[in-house]
Amino acid sequence: MEKPGERQKMEFLELPIAEVEQFLISFIREKVMAAGFSRGILGISGGLDSAVSAALAAKALGSQNVLGVMLPYGAAGRYDIHHATMLAREFHIPTKIIDITPMIDCYYMLFPETSPIRKGNKIARERMAVLFDLSAAEQALVLGTSNKSERLLGYGTIYGDMACGFNPLGDLYKSQVQMLAVHLKIPEEILAKKPSAGLWAGQTDEEELGFVYAVADPILSLLVDHKKKPDEIEALGYERDVIHKIASLVKASRFKREMPPIAEIPEEMRRARGPSFP
Amino acid sequence: MEKPGERQKMEFLELPIAEVEQFLISFIREKVMAAGFSRGILGISGGLDSAVSAALAAKALGSQNVLGVMLPYGAAGRYDIHHATMLAREFHIPTKIIDITPMIDCYYMLFPETSPIRKGNKIARERMAVLFDLSAAEQALVLGTSNKSERLLGYGTIYGDMACGFNPLGDLYKSQVQMLAVHLKIPEEILAKKPSAGLWAGQTDEEELGFVYAVADPILSLLVDHKKKPDEIEALGYERDVIHKIASLVKASRFKREMPPIAEIPEEMRRARGPSFP
Repeated sequence: MEKPGERQKMEFLELPIAEVEQFLISFIREKVMAAGFSRGILGISGGLDSAVSAALAAKALGSQNVLGVMLPYGAAGRYDIHHATMLAREFHIPTKIIDITPMIDCYYMLFPETSPIRKGNKIARERMAVLFDLSAAEQALVLGTSNKSERLLGYGTIYGDMACGFNPLGDLYKSQVQMLAVHLKIPEEILAKKPSAGLWAGQTDEEELGFVYAVADPILSLLVDHKKKPDEIEALGYERDVIHKIASLVKASRFKREMPPIAEIPEEMRRARGPSFP
Repeated sequence: MEKPGERQKMEFLELPIAEVEQFLISFIREKVMAAGFSRGILGISGGLDSAVSAALAAKALGSQNVLGVMLPYGAAGRYDIHHATMLAREFHIPTKIIDITPMIDCYYMLFPETSPIRKGNKIARERMAVLFDLSAAEQALVLGTSNKSERLLGYGTIYGDMACGFNPLGDLYKSQVQMLAVHLKIPEEILAKKPSAGLWAGQTDEEELGFVYAVADPILSLLVDHKKKPDEIEALGYERDVIHKIASLVKASRFKREMPPIAEIPEEMRRARGPSFP
């Protein structure tokens, strides 16, 4: 069977990449200045998203004003250090390596039977905490690297990799980040890697999610940007099960994209005792 | 000089406490159910805010469905096991103690010269990460304990103590939490303690901030809820310097109360290449 997603994607997910690049460079500059900083800091994993964020930051702030932090956990991290280093060299970005293995392992001595998902989330939060600690030390604002596909699917850790000072990639689908990466001349080896959260060895996003971004992205855009109903999307030739799975992930992960709800005291209770204000 | 804040506070910060209590109990029940959970988890520090959150959670969910976690750091921490235990006994809440000293200390071996503020923020984020890890293990939603005074003043750690699944206290000023605490019969020893973030020995909120909550709360309410200008508040008898300090803290900490900004791709770029949607 033909894959309609593959063909249609190019029609409505394409962007004028050079313009988008300039827009993102201005955005980074503006947000860093507005926060009273002149520098940026981010975790560089050796993957595509952080490579694109780092390259944009280098263009926006000057390479020397960007700090790329590698935060390996365990042995699985070695391969990524290689690609993260390659990226940093390519864009002349200074780097730091902080091995988070000791902090994670000494916590999980308490829970040796923990699941990979719990451990993965704790790792993502440790990376966040280290980045924010270095942000204070270095007077550099933390750049986010979560793309729109991950954010909408909830494929990320709340208060972990989804936490940042500001995010230049949050409105770009994974396929669009890939297009931007090509334009930015991100090293071929990084472009060719399968997307992975890097939380355990051999993890890939697409295997874990059960669908590829080339299919997910147009469906997400149809659902979210174009407000189409699942039936309408199915009529365009997308698989029913995938559409419904994606729609339910978007719904279930809404809490990751919003501030936690606060109990807002009803107006009538506020006014119950107090006189009208002076 | 007379302190107008002390007197006026009672006029417009008073609340019908029994009604507010019922409202918050319903809120907790509703949020926990909506998330598909039946249990709640929170850090209990031995301080007032977490005591109030815990007591409300016990009433909303049943004591046995609440887990109070004590997360002490070091020997000097004011993170008061004694008072937290007293609170848990009073409300029949099961507890767990996780000493976060090893995780923090093994990180700061890398930065032995770190500042208390950096270390304090790292501690707050470690507590968050442990609570969310246990939340997954225990299938319990994380209750927040940040009150409205702290939130507006930015007196808290973003992605640390300000992070939660939902927050029953976020719309109550510290003085209102204190009134609620009396109503809930929180143990006298906890009521009598000076508010403290507990990040280092001897730390108290009011000394660090440079003003007391009894003055800050009415000023905050006038600024934020009643949209008064600093000059108008000064005319009511509040000190000019304090008003301006508070106003600037509210402004500077706005980023802690919002989702991090995302670079939203302008509509004209979205439509530049793609045809109108199928």
